[in-house]
Order: sequence, then C-alpha cells, then structure tokens
Amino acid sequence: MSYNTYGRLFRVTTWGESHGPALGATVDGCPPGIALDEAAIQVWLDRRKPGQNRYTTQRREADAVEILSGTYEGQTTGTPIQLAIRNTDQRSKDYGAIADTFRPGHADITYWQKYGIRDPRGGGRSSARETAARVAAGGVARAVLADLAPGMTVTASMVQMGPHVIDRARSDPAEIARNPFWTPDAQAAQVWAGYLDELRKSGDSVGAMIEIRIAGAMPGLGAPVYAKLDTDLAAAMMSINAVKGVEIGEGMAAAGLTGSANADEITMGPDGPVYASNHAGGILGGISTGQDIVLRIAVKPTSSILTPRRSITRTGQPTEVVTKGRHDPCVGIRAVPVAEAMAAAVMLDHLLMHRAQIGDGPRGRIG
Amino acid sequence: MSYNTYGRLFRVTTWGESHGPALGATVDGCPPGIALDEAAIQVWLDRRKPGQNRYTTQRREADAVEILSGTYEGQTTGTPIQLAIRNTDQRSKDYGAIADTFRPGHADITYWQKYGIRDPRGGGRSSARETAARVAAGGVARAVLADLAPGMTVTASMVQMGPHVIDRARSDPAEIARNPFWTPDAQAAQVWAGYLDELRKSGDSVGAMIEIRIAGAMPGLGAPVYAKLDTDLAAAMMSINAVKGVEIGEGMAAAGLTGSANADEITMGPDGPVYASNHAGGILGGISTGQDIVLRIAVKPTSSILTPRRSITRTGQPTEVVTKGRHDPCVGIRAVPVAEAMAAAVMLDHLLMHRAQIGDGPRGRIG
Amino acid sequence: MSYNTYGRLFRVTTWGESHGPALGATVDGCPPGIALDEAAIQVWLDRRKPGQNRYTTQRREADAVEILSGTYEGQTTGTPIQLAIRNTDQRSKDYGAIADTFRPGHADITYWQKYGIRDPRGGGRSSARETAARVAAGGVARAVLADLAPGMTVTASMVQMGPHVIDRARSDPAEIARNPFWTPDAQAAQVWAGYLDELRKSGDSVGAMIEIRIAGAMPGLGAPVYAKLDTDLAAAMMSINAVKGVEIGEGMAAAGLTGSANADEITMGPDGPVYASNHAGGILGGISTGQDIVLRIAVKPTSSILTPRRSITRTGQPTEVVTKGRHDPCVGIRAVPVAEAMAAAVMLDHLLMHRAQIGDGPRGRIG
Amino acid sequence: MSYNTYGRLFRVTTWGESHGPALGATVDGCPPGIALDEAAIQVWLDRRKPGQNRYTTQRREADAVEILSGTYEGQTTGTPIQLAIRNTDQRSKDYGAIADTFRPGHADITYWQKYGIRDPRGGGRSSARETAARVAAGGVARAVLADLAPGMTVTASMVQMGPHVIDRARSDPAEIARNPFWTPDAQAAQVWAGYLDELRKSGDSVGAMIEIRIAGAMPGLGAPVYAKLDTDLAAAMMSINAVKGVEIGEGMAAAGLTGSANADEITMGPDGPVYASNHAGGILGGISTGQDIVLRIAVKPTSSILTPRRSITRTGQPTEVVTKGRHDPCVGIRAVPVAEAMAAAVMLDHLLMHRAQIGDGPRGRIG
Repeated sequence: MSYNTYGRLFRVTTWGESHGPALGATVDGCPPGIALDEAAIQVWLDRRKPGQNRYTTQRREADAVEILSGTYEGQTTGTPIQLAIRNTDQRSKDYGAIADTFRPGHADITYWQKYGIRDPRGGGRSSARETAARVAAGGVARAVLADLAPGMTVTASMVQMGPHVIDRARSDPAEIARNPFWTPDAQAAQVWAGYLDELRKSGDSVGAMIEIRIAGAMPGLGAPVYAKLDTDLAAAMMSINAVKGVEIGEGMAAAGLTGSANADEITMGPDGPVYASNHAGGILGGISTGQDIVLRIAVKPTSSILTPRRSITRTGQPTEVVTKGRHDPCVGIRAVPVAEAMAAAVMLDHLLMHRAQIGDGPRGRIG
Repeated sequence: MSYNTYGRLFRVTTWGESHGPALGATVDGCPPGIALDEAAIQVWLDRRKPGQNRYTTQRREADAVEILSGTYEGQTTGTPIQLAIRNTDQRSKDYGAIADTFRPGHADITYWQKYGIRDPRGGGRSSARETAARVAAGGVARAVLADLAPGMTVTASMVQMGPHVIDRARSDPAEIARNPFWTPDAQAAQVWAGYLDELRKSGDSVGAMIEIRIAGAMPGLGAPVYAKLDTDLAAAMMSINAVKGVEIGEGMAAAGLTGSANADEITMGPDGPVYASNHAGGILGGISTGQDIVLRIAVKPTSSILTPRRSITRTGQPTEVVTKGRHDPCVGIRAVPVAEAMAAAVMLDHLLMHRAQIGDGPRGRIG
Repeated sequence: MSYNTYGRLFRVTTWGESHGPALGATVDGCPPGIALDEAAIQVWLDRRKPGQNRYTTQRREADAVEILSGTYEGQTTGTPIQLAIRNTDQRSKDYGAIADTFRPGHADITYWQKYGIRDPRGGGRSSARETAARVAAGGVARAVLADLAPGMTVTASMVQMGPHVIDRARSDPAEIARNPFWTPDAQAAQVWAGYLDELRKSGDSVGAMIEIRIAGAMPGLGAPVYAKLDTDLAAAMMSINAVKGVEIGEGMAAAGLTGSANADEITMGPDGPVYASNHAGGILGGISTGQDIVLRIAVKPTSSILTPRRSITRTGQPTEVVTKGRHDPCVGIRAVPVAEAMAAAVMLDHLLMHRAQIGDGPRGRIG
Repeated sequence: MSYNTYGRLFRVTTWGESHGPALGATVDGCPPGIALDEAAIQVWLDRRKPGQNRYTTQRREADAVEILSGTYEGQTTGTPIQLAIRNTDQRSKDYGAIADTFRPGHADITYWQKYGIRDPRGGGRSSARETAARVAAGGVARAVLADLAPGMTVTASMVQMGPHVIDRARSDPAEIARNPFWTPDAQAAQVWAGYLDELRKSGDSVGAMIEIRIAGAMPGLGAPVYAKLDTDLAAAMMSINAVKGVEIGEGMAAAGLTGSANADEITMGPDGPVYASNHAGGILGGISTGQDIVLRIAVKPTSSILTPRRSITRTGQPTEVVTKGRHDPCVGIRAVPVAEAMAAAVMLDHLLMHRAQIGDGPRGRIG
C-alpha cells in the first residue's frame, strides 16, 4: 500500500517538492535489456518543460534528468531505475505570508488539515512540478513499449480550451506537434492563441479537455474485475493535478444513448475482428478489443489568478488572495505530455500483467 | 497485485460467476468489535436485488447473504469476513450457441481473446451479477463507518435517464427511496416510467447518469499523489460494469470554465472553514475539504437488446445477434446501490489509511 | 496491504475459523486453461486430513473441498477460484471457561490483547485448521506448475522429531509416503512410533524439523532485493502455525563455516553449469541456480498438553490450564503437507513474476 | 507488487548499484511532524560504514546521506522521503574479466541467467553496498519510533563468529558498542580479533550469528495469518545479503523440545501479564506478547576469498577464481547495523498497521 506509487508491476514512485533540492521517480519492475539513456527520457521531458513559450509558466527549469541507477552500458538491467531532476530555479522569497494563507482552489488547506505541516514553497508536493517525474518515468515506459509492443502509439492532444472546441473535420494528427497547444486543429490553435493572450492580460485562467488515443494495442490487455484497463487508465488520469473528469469512448454521453445506437457491430476482416464503430473506446469488460483506446480528461483552470478571492488564514482570519508571479493561464497545455506519460505507463503495466498470467499475446484465436 | 481486489487497507476480493454455484466477497482488514450480522448486510442487497419491479431483469434471485467467517456473537473479530451468496435461478438452457457467438458490446469477445476460455453461462464473471458481491461488501463498510464516522452518509441517485435529465429545482433527497429509479425528482420518475415501458416494448435499452454524494466526511481524508481520494473513487466507479465516465465536482464541464468562475472562496465559520461554492466537489489536491464530496458516473445502455446486430462467431463466420430473455432495459437503475457500496468502501479505506499515517482526526487546526 | 493474503501474483487469501460454518481460500491470479477439479485438490487435502492415524488429532473432518468459482468444464478460466471446506465436526461444548482463560503458548492472549474480541471455539482463526485452506490452494498451485513447469517437484519430509534425528545414510525418498511421519528413514519411523505412543500417554507433545526440497526449478527464479526467492520462501514457512525457524542450504550452520568450506565450485556440464556442492541451498542472491532448493523449518511442540501449566484469566486471576481432548502430540506431522503447499505456491508465484518481467525461461545463456 | 520494496505501510524502496553514481532509499508512508534531518540518519550510517577498522572492507566511502525530499524545516511532511548516498570510492579498473567469470557463491551467475545482463562493477545491485540504503531508511524508522513508541529499543549484536560462540554468562549489553564486532562479550571480542587477523592473512572468510532483541514493544503488534510479526521479521532478515537462516525464540532448537518444556507460564504482574520464560521469543500467533522479541540470523562467510576456486566463464570455459582486493573477512560484522535497521522498519510498519485496523494501543484489557 503506497501513497506515492502507481502501477501494479511497472511501479513508479515519484518523490520531491516544487522547491526542494530535487524531484524524481523510482521505477521498479522494468524488464532488462531495454536500450535506455538520459537522452531518450529527456526528449519527453522537453515537451513538458516550462517556459518554452508565452502560454506556460515562465519559471525556468532545465529539467535535466539524471539516471542514477538501473542501467549499464545503455541498457536496463532489471534493477530499480532512479530518475532525478535537480530544481534549479527556486526563487528566494519570503514564504511567510503564503505559509499562513490558504489559496482558494489549492491543496494548501487540505494538506494543512491532514498533516499539520506543509512545505509552502511553490506548492510543495502538490505543485504541478511533480508531473515532471511522471513524464520521466513515462519515458522509460515508452522505451520498453518500443521493444515489447513496437506497433503501439500513445498520443494526447488538446480538443477544447475553455469555450473553444476543436472542429473534428479539420483535425490532423500531424498538426499536434506543430503548435504550442498540442491540438490537431491548426485553426483552433490560432484562435486559442489570441484567446489566451487576452486571458493572461486579464489575469485569469481557463480549463481544457485532452484526448488520449492509444493505437496498436493488441486485444486482451486488461483484467476483470478491478484491474480493468479502463479502471487503471481512469485512476492514472485522475491522479494528475487539476483533472476533474475522465471518460472512455462515448463517456458521459453514454448516459444519453440507447443500446441500439451504442452497439459496435462486428465483422470479420482479414486480420481478425473489425468493428463498425468504437462507442466502447476500445475496451469491453475492462479488456482491450484491439481498436483504438480513446479517453478524454477535463483539466480545471488553475486557481492561481490575479482576481482577488476571499479566503482565510491559518488562524481563521479573513483575507484576500491574489496570486502574482509565474503561472500557467492554461495548465491543460502542460498536462498533455503528462497524460501521455501516464497512459504509456498503464499500457506497459498491463502488458506485463498479461505476460504474467497468460504469456505472450492473446490466447484465444478467432477465425 | 490482485486482479479481483479493491481497496488498500479495507480489501475486498469478489469471486464467482453468474451461473456458478455461488458468488461472494472476501473482506480483509475489517476492524474488530463492529456489530455485524447477515440482516445488516441483507438490507443493502435487497436494494439491488433483481426482479423487484418491472424495470429490472426478471431473473429471480433471493440474493441471501451468508457470513461464513470473521464474526463471533454478532461482532467482527478482525479476521477475514467471507460473504457468500448462492445462485438459485440458473435456468438450464443450451449455451452452445452463445458460447460460440460474440454479442456486440459484451465482454464475450475480449474474455475469449485474452483467456482462450470463458464461462458463457449468463456472462460468467463479466455479468452484472458480480456486483451483488460488491453490495454485500459495501454493507460491511457501512457498518464500520457507522461506528468510526457516524456522521458520514453516502447516497447515490439517478439524475439522468437517456435524454431525460432531472430538474434540480424539483429535487428532494427524501424522494430517492420512494421510486424505482432512485431519483430525487418525483416528476422525472413518472416520465421515466412511461419512457422505459416504451423502450422495453421496442426491445431497446438506455443509458443513465448517477450522482454520488458523500456528506459528513471529515477534512483530511485522501493522500497525494497516487492515493488521492478522487483517484480511488474514480477507479472504484470505473470498475463497475458499463460505467464509461466519472467526474468530480464540475467534472468535464471544468474544461470550459475560467479560474475566476471556478474558485471556491473560503470564509471562517463557527466550526471551521466555510466554502462559498463547491466547484471542487469536496476534494482539493486529492484530500477531502469537509464539504460534500460529489461525483457523477455515466452508465452505458446494456447491449442485450432485441434489435438484431451484426457479429461474428468464434470461427470468424458472420452472424446476427438478438438477445432474448431477462434483461435490464436500464442497467443504470441497479447500478445505483452498487455505486453507493463502492463509495462507502473507498471512504472507509481512506479513513483507515488516515489512521495509519496520521492517527484519529485531522492533524492541522484552523482558527 | 492484506493481513490474510500471501503471494504477489498468485494470490491466496485464506478465511475461516476452526469451528465456524466453513473455511477456505480465495485464489486470484491463476492462469487460464489449467485442468482442475475438486478431485485434483482433494488428493492433497487428504494427506493433511486429521484423524487418519493415532498420531494426529482425533477430530473427524471430511475436509471435502468445493470449488465455488473460477473453473468451467474442468478448466480454470483465469477468474478467482473460491475453495470452500465445510466444518462438520464442531463438538458442541461450553466455551465459557476457555473464553476467559489464556492457554500458555497459545495465541489466545495476544488475539485478545490486540482485538479485544476473539472466537474461542477451537482456537478460532489461530487454529491449525486454517492450514487446510493453504493445502487446498497449494493443490491449485500444483496443477498450474504441472502445466507450466512439468519437471518441478516439491517434496517435504520430516527429518527430526524431538531428540530423534534421521540417519541421512538410510534415507530413501520412496519411504516418505509409506509411513505416518512423512520421513525418508523407515527405521526412524519405527522409533518415532514408539516414542510418540509414550509421549501421548504422558500427555506431552514434541517438536519436529521438516525439510522441503524443490527439484527441477529452472535457474533465474527469484528477484533481488526484497522479492528474493529465499525471502518469500522464508516468509511462507514462518507464516505456518508453530514454525519458529527457517533455514536455507547450510542455514544456521553457515555461521560456523569458513568461506573456503562454503563455496560451491562450478564446472560446465552438458546441459549447463554443474555445482560440486550445494551449501547455498539452490539460491544465490535471491535467485535460483537450478540446483535443488533445500529448506528446513522447525515446528515447536503444541502447547495443548495434559501437564498443568500456570496461567491467568481475562480478569487477571491466577489459574491452571490443562488441555484435554483431541490434539496432536506432534503437530509437525501435519505441517509436512502444509509446508509443501506453501512452497508450491511460492514457486508458482515466482514463475509468474519471472514471466512478467523477463518472459519465458532464463534470459542469459551460458556456453 | 514490487521487487525492490519492503514494508506494507512504511514502504522502503532501495535503488542503486555498488559502483553507480549513487544509491539510496525512497521512503513512503512516513507520518508527518517527526523531527528528522541528515545528522539523525548519518549516526546510523556511520555504524555500518566500511573502512572503520581493520576487520571490514578497506573501501573508503563517506556514505554521506542527503535528504532530497519529504522534510521541511527539520520535520517530516508525510510526503516521500528520498535518501541519496553518492558513491565516491569507485576504483577504476578493468571489469572485463570479472564480467565474463562467475565467482562461486556470488549472485554473478544467477543475475546473468535471469536477466541476460548485469552490472559487474563491484557486484552491481547484489553488492552488500545496497545495505547502506537500508540503514538510512532504518534511521527514518528509528526517528518515527522515538516519537510513536518511545520505550521501544532495537538492538542487534554478534553472538557467534565461526567456531567461536559468546558466553551468555559474560554478556553485557553495554559492551556491544565498545568493540568492533558488536558483541556483548568483551572477552569473546578479544578472541575474535586474533582469530580474524589470522583468517585475513590466510585469505579466508568466516560466517557469523547475529541476535536481534526488541524490547519495549507493546502487546498486540502483528497480524494473523500472513502478516504475522514473525513472518515479516523473517522476511526482512532473509532479504539481507548472505543471510541463510532466521529463528525466533527457541528457533530451530524447538524441534527438539517437548511441550511441557516449551510452555511459557503466565502470572499476573502489577502492569499486566508476566511470563516465567520466553521460549516463544515474544511472539504468539504472529502477535507480540509484550516480552522481548528475540531473533537470530546466520550470515554466511563471504565467498570473496583468496583460496582459488574452480568456476566457469560465460561461454562455459573452465577457470579458476581468486578474489583479490578489498573485502570483508566477516561480512556478519557490518550486517549487525543492517539487521537492526530492518527490524526497526518492520516494527514501525506493524505499529502503523495496528493503528489502521485497531487504533492506538492494544484493544483488549487484562485484569
């Protein structure tokens, strides 16, 4: 029973505070003989790195990952992999005031109530900075998947920012890496850029919706009843800071559908079953069908805004809170690579679970 | 690492197939000295029992729970509690055809692909019947909560059936137990009754949305970063058959909000912090605030419908599937007590986790 | 975190009290497609069954196992296997006196102190009767091993009873099943029979040492650092009632050896490495070498004896305890099949762990 | 399921290789508000540090621990504590030969067979150097125990070195810290000093026996059936490098005793039950009695010796192995603080488990 670990067989424990000396991830259960070096992980970290454009926090962090254990001559050895990232941009300032005031919408107040002590520097453990460790661990998962499931791809993209939703007709996966919002709709990216500039000027923030798509997963991954693939994906997503909802396939809209509209009819194709639709989001009974696995998550707007908000101090005195300084007007942007990393880790975890109980590949043939 | 267990300290392992001799739950980690007998569990099972009205499956199951271990003279002893429910209404029929055909939207095909063998009788392990064991285990959780957290209540209700959404202005919690749909909107219950009669005649089914509300939880329950209270609640809900989405507080709608609209301002009340709103759904940073914890889940329409659907057989031959017989036109109805049971188990689990690391009650005082 | 579960991937949760309605084991993580029925398990249970000869307790239990879930048409399906054994010989008697008195050497007093409640009937959960569930679960492990590791054998035997140690020169594995003591030394069996008759008459009991030998295990099973094969075997053995010591290979005697005497020299044989000796007991660095894995455990004499012993009551009053009735003069005898069952479960567990991280078979070739 | 983690609620994951950049421990589940800084941990590390006298390896390591996370202003915050120790004395040498040769008695061969890759530098992950991380984590456990169970002491000492056993009549706990062997028998320490000098000259090594004594533990710690206190202690001890046997109370000698000799009679003292003896070693039914908990472990002689031993290379060629360089003639010496650290961690773990299920203190009163 761990508080700071995810995964069942591919186990990731993240550690570290926003303004402590370092943060990182302890990765246990990695198969041996996988090519892995710091550069292979850094490429993923660089996608999440703050301060890359004017739409994310201006904190400057190199986010340079160091592998402290678990590899030898560029390969994993099967022993724990320690990934450490030094914090470099810890602005010295007086945290006295912040330490005594609870920011509305932050975990300040609940950490205090639970533990009776909290590290107030930059949000401590509850800072979005923790997600850097997840992305680093996701890089390890990616490297293993490239070896064990070479056809599998895990891609996240932003499909909504505040009131602005993408136009699916205009969507092009190739666009995702070409704009600062990781959106497949190039025209939406332009609209969002203007919208976000305005928002930042007004000192406000905005929510976002991210879609995660996993293609090329073999059928048979997942396990009833509580180790369902969708259960683990949902838990992984909900554990990301600021995520308030997770849905799979039709998702929340399934509540409004009839069974005749929702069924995914099956025919036989040359390589196995072919589905006429994918309302299920690629998962039936907690197990992958072989179709694309499709999830969406909602990220709330950050509560660090310039608009003054009423709050209280630790002694119960009324106060007003305005969050100045370096913050993300849309934290959803940097949540995109984080969601990808978490999804990759879950997929690898289920691949290892499948190997343990079943062996390599699906066991039941069709046709 | 368990495939069929949920909970971290209050551990529930369910077992059993729809048409096997019995099903049940093995409950480990229950505190000792808690008053518990079969009647105390049966009351919850009776809420979920099939065949109670014309809106749920006509399968007749007594669903009588037997406590095989873990209590002595009406009290828990701290040892594992075995809850068994005999299956009584196992209609004899020829499963040969079903065993070779995959029903669209069912786990038939994925179970087969994963395991190379499956119990086809009534859906085997993937049947909604498995949820009876969850409800029984939830009854144990309720008994412990009544002792350790007497002010806490866990209530689920149906807030949408297909296209019909309740009117919050008309909602009255007292109505929930008075209609077969567990909805707080009495007028909606009448509309839904007519709608469901029509739907059943046409052989179709429909989805639903359920809201779960936990009141009276102390602040401080939950744990960053991966044992967040909302993470565990989301996983518990997503593990329920047919659930396709989970949201907390503002949920998916948070993607469309600004930070200024989403902040829950705080003032000081006579007994501690008072929040002006509850966009967060009672959880900040994975830890309860003391406000009501509010979740919603979407349940897809059952795929067992009279409308013929194209599918394939195990040998890859095309076929058409029509599901005749006893089925729920809206499985969401019976998912209401299941969602309640899962939520109760998660809350107890986090209460025990909190005791382990912190002790009794929140540790940090305000005021 | 479970109190009543062992295993990492092949997970066994036992439940039940000595004089409750039933006891059993919930087995999760079993691979699918393994031939399994009640007869295959019963054969192992019959070896442990009480009342088979005059050297074990005269309690009469059919110990008939029922498979309540997890198989279909004589094969495992990959879902949880529920094994239940009804208790039939629950003598009605007044437990009032026992309930208030603590028997020296029993868990009566510690259960009471910990839980504040205990089931006094026949020792409740602390009874050796719990081991019937372990043996049943071990039967499942055996069935899976027969499929996944057909050359592996797990054999336990008694090598010491009180002051009487076997003569290794006279040992013959074929003798083990031919005497009521599971000893490979037929002559010792005769001596022990007379010794035990005397002991029973005098109302005393005696300890025993059991050796467990696992042959045919492939090299590479086990995992540094805390999931070592010897660590898991030691834990499994120490969890058996009345076991007070576990040793591997040279065991406790290793404290007295020099490095030059203790080294197992290696040469190359036709099928791989050949070791000149086996001081290590078949495990190096927590991982199997391919040699026989050899453990020994010490079982203490049961404390249920006719000799009066001083003790206290729950209210702290002095009293004298004499245990009359049906008891084992040497509980070590019935611990032999239990130790075998635990060893089989651990070996399967590590086989599944190895498959998860590495795949099938050892990964590094020699020669 | 973790390969490199121990503990159920106080979870320690060690990471790092002997000659990698660093090694350490990730500690999760630590209660908040505990005074902790690097000095408090360093004091325990210094006891284990190599190169302190002529009886241990001459490798020079500062073993300076750095706390990278989980504390704020000298107190634990309840978040993961990352303890890192830089490796400083990594002699550059050609590992090519070692990488291709398997040393008899080392984990070289099994690591290779399992993983198909291993870090040969100084033994990699299988090096005794890993135990530095355990001692650091044990320092955290000590700090928490000092707060939650102030009367509890955990002390290990050496009671046998090769053929030389201490004289219990001469034992004085105060002597343990006064000699380089951690033995309570000052006269034995002198004998051992001479013996070890001889042994080192001859290039041989020797085994040892360590006794661990935990005093002041409340009754009620531990949990039947598989989370027994003795089970967890045995597993923790057996996970230490080179340990080949674990025994509790009478231990292996219990096999030779009668029940009348083995019973620990109970009388009522002013503060609760008083036991006339402690054959049980302070644990009954897996739960502490309140007496001293007494374990002994056997540590095998290190296989790194000057005496040439036959072995093979990776290609199966015969070779002879002589281990030159810096090594411990009696690794048991440095295992003493390691055993203490493991025992402290297990005791804390069970204290937290008890709090979770029962609350503070034993629940059942006597008298």
